[in-house]
Amino acid sequence: MPALFWIVPVAGVLTVLFVLWLVRDVLKHDRGTPKMQEIGDMIFQGAWAFLKRQYSTIAVFSLIIAVVIGVLVGVLGGSESGYTGFAIAWRTAVAFLVGAACSAVAGFVGMYIAVKSNLRCASAAQKSLNDAVNVALRGGGVAGFLITALSLIGVTVIFFAFGGYDKPDIAPHLIIGFGFGASFVALFAQLGGGIYTKAADVGADLVGKVESGIPEDDPRNPAVIADLVGDNVGDCAGRGADLFESTAAESIGAMILGIVLYVATGSIVWILFPLVVRGFGMIASMVGLLTVKAKENENPMSALNRGYYVSIALAIIGLFVSVYFMFHDQLAGKEMWLFGAGMVGIIASVIVVYVTQYYTEFRFRPVRDIAEASKTGPATNIIAGMSVGFETTFATAVIIGISLILSYWFGTKSGIDGAGVFGTAVATMGMLMTCPYILTMDTFGPITDNANGINEMAGAGPEVRRITDKLDAVGNTTKALTKGYALVSAGLAAFLLFQAYLDQVAFIQGAEVGHSVVDLAQIEVFVGALLAAMVVFLFSAMSIKAVGKTASKIIEEVRRQFRADPEILNPKDPSNPHKPDYAKAVDITAKAGMREMIAPGLLPILAPVIVGLVFRWMDYDAPMVVAGFLMVGTIVGIMMASFMNNGGGAWDNAKKMIEDNQLKDENGNVLGKKTTAHAAAVVGDTIGDPLKDTAGPSLHVLIKLLATVTLVLAPLFIK
Amino acid sequence: MPALFWIVPVAGVLTVLFVLWLVRDVLKHDRGTPKMQEIGDMIFQGAWAFLKRQYSTIAVFSLIIAVVIGVLVGVLGGSESGYTGFAIAWRTAVAFLVGAACSAVAGFVGMYIAVKSNLRCASAAQKSLNDAVNVALRGGGVAGFLITALSLIGVTVIFFAFGGYDKPDIAPHLIIGFGFGASFVALFAQLGGGIYTKAADVGADLVGKVESGIPEDDPRNPAVIADLVGDNVGDCAGRGADLFESTAAESIGAMILGIVLYVATGSIVWILFPLVVRGFGMIASMVGLLTVKAKENENPMSALNRGYYVSIALAIIGLFVSVYFMFHDQLAGKEMWLFGAGMVGIIASVIVVYVTQYYTEFRFRPVRDIAEASKTGPATNIIAGMSVGFETTFATAVIIGISLILSYWFGTKSGIDGAGVFGTAVATMGMLMTCPYILTMDTFGPITDNANGINEMAGAGPEVRRITDKLDAVGNTTKALTKGYALVSAGLAAFLLFQAYLDQVAFIQGAEVGHSVVDLAQIEVFVGALLAAMVVFLFSAMSIKAVGKTASKIIEEVRRQFRADPEILNPKDPSNPHKPDYAKAVDITAKAGMREMIAPGLLPILAPVIVGLVFRWMDYDAPMVVAGFLMVGTIVGIMMASFMNNGGGAWDNAKKMIEDNQLKDENGNVLGKKTTAHAAAVVGDTIGDPLKDTAGPSLHVLIKLLATVTLVLAPLFIK
Repeated sequence: MPALFWIVPVAGVLTVLFVLWLVRDVLKHDRGTPKMQEIGDMIFQGAWAFLKRQYSTIAVFSLIIAVVIGVLVGVLGGSESGYTGFAIAWRTAVAFLVGAACSAVAGFVGMYIAVKSNLRCASAAQKSLNDAVNVALRGGGVAGFLITALSLIGVTVIFFAFGGYDKPDIAPHLIIGFGFGASFVALFAQLGGGIYTKAADVGADLVGKVESGIPEDDPRNPAVIADLVGDNVGDCAGRGADLFESTAAESIGAMILGIVLYVATGSIVWILFPLVVRGFGMIASMVGLLTVKAKENENPMSALNRGYYVSIALAIIGLFVSVYFMFHDQLAGKEMWLFGAGMVGIIASVIVVYVTQYYTEFRFRPVRDIAEASKTGPATNIIAGMSVGFETTFATAVIIGISLILSYWFGTKSGIDGAGVFGTAVATMGMLMTCPYILTMDTFGPITDNANGINEMAGAGPEVRRITDKLDAVGNTTKALTKGYALVSAGLAAFLLFQAYLDQVAFIQGAEVGHSVVDLAQIEVFVGALLAAMVVFLFSAMSIKAVGKTASKIIEEVRRQFRADPEILNPKDPSNPHKPDYAKAVDITAKAGMREMIAPGLLPILAPVIVGLVFRWMDYDAPMVVAGFLMVGTIVGIMMASFMNNGGGAWDNAKKMIEDNQLKDENGNVLGKKTTAHAAAVVGDTIGDPLKDTAGPSLHVLIKLLATVTLVLAPLFIK
Repeated sequence: MPALFWIVPVAGVLTVLFVLWLVRDVLKHDRGTPKMQEIGDMIFQGAWAFLKRQYSTIAVFSLIIAVVIGVLVGVLGGSESGYTGFAIAWRTAVAFLVGAACSAVAGFVGMYIAVKSNLRCASAAQKSLNDAVNVALRGGGVAGFLITALSLIGVTVIFFAFGGYDKPDIAPHLIIGFGFGASFVALFAQLGGGIYTKAADVGADLVGKVESGIPEDDPRNPAVIADLVGDNVGDCAGRGADLFESTAAESIGAMILGIVLYVATGSIVWILFPLVVRGFGMIASMVGLLTVKAKENENPMSALNRGYYVSIALAIIGLFVSVYFMFHDQLAGKEMWLFGAGMVGIIASVIVVYVTQYYTEFRFRPVRDIAEASKTGPATNIIAGMSVGFETTFATAVIIGISLILSYWFGTKSGIDGAGVFGTAVATMGMLMTCPYILTMDTFGPITDNANGINEMAGAGPEVRRITDKLDAVGNTTKALTKGYALVSAGLAAFLLFQAYLDQVAFIQGAEVGHSVVDLAQIEVFVGALLAAMVVFLFSAMSIKAVGKTASKIIEEVRRQFRADPEILNPKDPSNPHKPDYAKAVDITAKAGMREMIAPGLLPILAPVIVGLVFRWMDYDAPMVVAGFLMVGTIVGIMMASFMNNGGGAWDNAKKMIEDNQLKDENGNVLGKKTTAHAAAVVGDTIGDPLKDTAGPSLHVLIKLLATVTLVLAPLFIK
């Protein structure tokens, strides 16, 4: 065991202690006025009820899948590489359940603290901006650090539990179930949460703002609590599960790729490297977070960025140390090429931030174009936004493409045969080093959004609203950046996951680990690829439609409440005894959202399996068909997610730009709220919502789920 | 030379005579009242001016490209298979110019007659429905038959001119420039026409219907003539060029695939088969067209369908005869498997018609869902439409996938080595047999649309309007069906075009013709594939944006005219001397559209070349990177086009459904024109317009252009 490996348990324990400290720190803050507490409690109960319902559904599915995997792999798999099908089957099933459970625990605890932080952030805003930033950031940190720590610890423990010490070349193949479990939960968490949050948002807006003419977050709207709950279950729990599974699946994939180099060199460092780098990343992010201090009269985004750059700088040092101490003995200086590969990943993660800002902030051309187009109505607004969204795929593809080619090339320069792919794995790990910090910033978003909502509902003064409004705007930016980061990391990881799949196929076939050919010129591979592209479009259709269906249920319920007691709509008056039934709206949204997540959730799991089994039955080279499916599905998924995330963000900010009075007509008059341009921009924003918060983020998960499901079920496709 | 080959010149001559007869028949019809003639003349002049301007631009580009091809292939290509680079280069450049010229001639003549038919159709509608159907169909037939005949004759002549008689195994490689010339012109024709037509449409609607509240096709709108011109240059000239290049490029691709079988068997029938089948197809379509007789009080669509089924039945007989007489000697009974492959193509073309109807007619769920969603405003309408559009990729991918697998399998069953791909070529040829008829139905669309507009502007009575309204609705259906047909034929042809590319690469490398491997698991191929997917999205962004930019120019011009002379807007009064300046609007649209077509037009030509050259420079296996680019670009292009064509059609018909008073609210009241639901549906239709008439159809061409440009420039990628 290389000495440096001890950074993994050290970082794990440190992180857990750090998280406990954060929790204590957040909880000791003031909970505000009774009115605020009442609202906070409602959000808490709504979110909690949804999570319980959601995770019970997921638990049932997970158990079924675990049994199915066990039986299918056990029966159809045959005996492989000295392991019987059964030996692989039970380990995969167990790993699957552990992965699923870790993801669920991380989601639950993170959400618990995030929801508790809302209220405290709202209250802290009454003291100072810095206090409010601190609460939101530390609350977010609980989710960010706990999730990544659980992924690191989980992968490490299961690796050793399944014989990683004695047979490091076999164990990574046995723990892939962990990654599948994680991505399985992630898909449902992201889909269910995404459907819930956008249905509540769209529903609340359509009956509230549009039909009844009451403002956003108005307490008279029965759907307002559901809307606030949605921010937590969608952005917070959903993205958390997404990045939990990214880190888990990509670490496992990288370890599988390390096997070939372990076999070649006899050194275990190739397999353990991904874990060590991530250990350093945890510590770098921790220090980064601790340095954040928001100054009054400063844009809080600048403070967050300073912390991010501290994390990046420390991550680079950590990367250097790991590469040098783990590979210097073998590579005698050439290990610096691997450091270069890691730097590619880190630099890519920084570039993504700028590109995302360019496409989604109204300082730049794309959003301004959309706002301009709003002058001629919703149709031109939407055409402009769609075209911006499509255009963003250019940056996404070029960043991923160059990073892959470069890091692969750096890998080959290390002088070890077959280290090219390992170079892309190092780049991915480099990018994931700052994941805890990124995830913290992401969870910052829903916390500040909710804090703003609580202050609005509790009728806080304009000075306090100014602070939480500001924080809310920062939260929107961090959410957009995280999506960009999650997308590019998924793209960067894609190639390593394919190669892991090909290695897995070779392993099962008992062949020497090496690279198989995925020949697109074979008709069956081409058709598999065509079907994969289709699955991405179909999945998008299903998840967008799910939002629409769920939203219609909320709209019906709100209309019903308004009809049953029209007094609810009486002008704001704290003593008005006619209160809407928030809990009912929350419950109906949760039920409908849950029902609607099942079909799109099962599609990416069943599609590759069906394709693989059908082509196996037709006597084609099914494992290669599935490989083609996986690769082209990933490519199209990345492009589609780029369109949806960035297009949605651009529409959103075009609306905000008009609301900030930044749009003028040809005579120089400001076109602000209540103009037709604003109405058009609201339509664009409403369309962008399910794209950027439901379908788009679910596509990141889908990409990785395709990889883990095929990894786990590879035995089924092989005759 | 097999005896059956004589069907090709016979069909060619027959078709030319048939077209002349159609022209005479159309032109002898009555031109209507002086008012109608005045309008018809304006449309004619506008369309003519646009075409002249467009084709001059295209001609300049074509000459440049021809020179560039000549120089690049001549210098970089080196000597290949006994031919010097120069020998290949000049032939390719000449073939390119001939292909481009044939496409241009076909477009010009077809459009000329289509525009002359508008007026006569409008006038015939004053006599009877049958007369009007006849004029529109025969006018459409001139375009449909002339275009396909020119493609058949052009390919045949150039094949023999470049030594097809002596060296049938070399000639197909030398004539690929013809296909590239055809697709080059097609892309610009479709893009330029598509941008023009939708910019004029959107512009006329936004300032006319929305801003000034005057009805569609109202003579007071200065953009109304531009709108009518647009239907001709977009739907008619654009789709004509699309299918000209489809038939040309796919015939040449199939001939290249035949070479390997010619070499194996020594029989030229494998190379000539595609031409023979198409000869039979011409005759089958001709007879089909002659049988069409519309009864009064019958939906004209039924009459068109009867003719279509006659064509299909005769095409099947023609297919049988060609397969039997050309292959029986060699295959001794097994040739019927090839007949089966051809049937797959024919059946696929029929299924597509039904699937397209399902997704785009309001008798079925998808369009009804969109109309329902309009009740809650434009946002839900658009979300619903987008989800329907995405969903249609399922049917498209499954039809293409199954057709490919089946026809390939039929090909292998014929017992000849390597005949699998030839099976897909036979399927493609089977599908293309009825192309003349399909194209006739397509051109029927803009003719009836214009006839309706002319009658509206000339103030025809309600009875006449009822007839042309009915014809216009039929025209919308046939346009949608043609797009489905063009898309699936592009998908079916894709695989044969890849294989032709791989054969071409092998030919240039002097290797024996055989199949190379396109290994997606190689990082450079994967990155090439990723970039290809991106190019499809970027192309869509650019072409949608082009419509927006051009539309804004028209809007400015119309507003300027209204400001300069507000009397133009005075209520309808034939004696009102204040007339809008139609010609100015036509000219501005043409100029702007022309400028905007250049960037998206160059993208799919330059992108594969740049990718190939960069990877060649980096010492990767560039021809295989380009192959991956081509294949994945095709896959994503098909999916995106399916989304755009069908989504756009569904939005259009959801609006029509509301205008037909087919939507009811929860209390059973009809929601028709001037309701908020209708306003929402109009927004959806406006968004669908550039998708279904500009970007979507251009994507069909893009797919095939990628194939032809890489075929022609393959020498550049090989070191």
